[in-house]
Amino acid sequence: MPDTLHFWFDFASTYSYLSAMRIERDAARRGVRVEWQPFLLGPIFTDQGWTTSPFNIYPAKGRYMWRDMERLCASRNLPLTRPDPFPQNSLKAARLALTLPDSGPRAAFARAVFSAEFGDGRDISDDMVLQDALSQAGAAPEMLDRLSDPAIKAALFEQVDRAEALGLFGAPGFVVGSDLFWGDDRLDMAIEQAAQD
Amino acid sequence: MPDTLHFWFDFASTYSYLSAMRIERDAARRGVRVEWQPFLLGPIFTDQGWTTSPFNIYPAKGRYMWRDMERLCASRNLPLTRPDPFPQNSLKAARLALTLPDSGPRAAFARAVFSAEFGDGRDISDDMVLQDALSQAGAAPEMLDRLSDPAIKAALFEQVDRAEALGLFGAPGFVVGSDLFWGDDRLDMAIEQAAQD
Repeated sequence: MPDTLHFWFDFASTYSYLSAMRIERDAARRGVRVEWQPFLLGPIFTDQGWTTSPFNIYPAKGRYMWRDMERLCASRNLPLTRPDPFPQNSLKAARLALTLPDSGPRAAFARAVFSAEFGDGRDISDDMVLQDALSQAGAAPEMLDRLSDPAIKAALFEQVDRAEALGLFGAPGFVVGSDLFWGDDRLDMAIEQAAQD
Repeated sequence: MPDTLHFWFDFASTYSYLSAMRIERDAARRGVRVEWQPFLLGPIFTDQGWTTSPFNIYPAKGRYMWRDMERLCASRNLPLTRPDPFPQNSLKAARLALTLPDSGPRAAFARAVFSAEFGDGRDISDDMVLQDALSQAGAAPEMLDRLSDPAIKAALFEQVDRAEALGLFGAPGFVVGSDLFWGDDRLDMAIEQAAQD
């Protein structure tokens, strides 16, 4: 039986957008089930001494990333609008995703957030944008009221700890068993490994 | 007519090894000519405030890179031995590659150096290893005597300046016209673009 593929993503991450928009289709083709695991890169970057995205710290790397995203989005017929500011504050979106325990609505919410952010260039820390995404996922907009729930906050802290323990240092990451694959470029390989387990 | 693909590599770079071992075959299949462009990442990393490879500075990233290399080398039937120290000092190898103006011997020398380093784990700052690589490329071992030639030193400085001007911040890089592609994962896309130009 195929192993589960754990998809670790940060809502602020450009390459996570690429994977979010194709992972369910590509995994299903090989009979692989996907667990969507939202987390925050911020605390991990802080531990590395970074106060923002490496794409902002290293300008050549940042310029290249946007050019690369342009090419990849064009080849996949995905819209791309650069959100301002970049990176977006992904805290609320990550907490909301965790409040959606079922895989289907969580995935639908995540895709709606990524599309609003990188497709339409909207601000994903804006409650209206998040409410839209919740309703697209068939979830109750009142979930927004739970954002400050200590249990939800604690759950996200635990997610970040789990991500670090798994060796994640960027996003997206794909974990099959205890094996980590990093980046949208490794999604196919991760699916293959899950299918063969 | 297909455009030329400029292959920018640092001899100390693991992912440059992957590209070096396949680029001629894959490019030839699409009728694309390859120009081998040795350079040094060291000065570029220094400008970013790094004193060694990011794979050493960020341990989680480094551990992942070696695991990733293991998987990729296994799937391509390439040997992999971790050189010690890592990264290797690639200065002499880069200068020698520049002294070989013709594409064939330069490529053959580069593949021999990469194989010694990452296939056999040998020290590529060792003159014996470099001499071996020169003879495998059909080049005169006396070229080693030219290592301190000011013209060769200047040529390598210029290469690094060109690399920075092209926006390179890591290796390997592939340049088609003025468009940059970064990483072995983008080699196929770069070849495709060159073929269509």
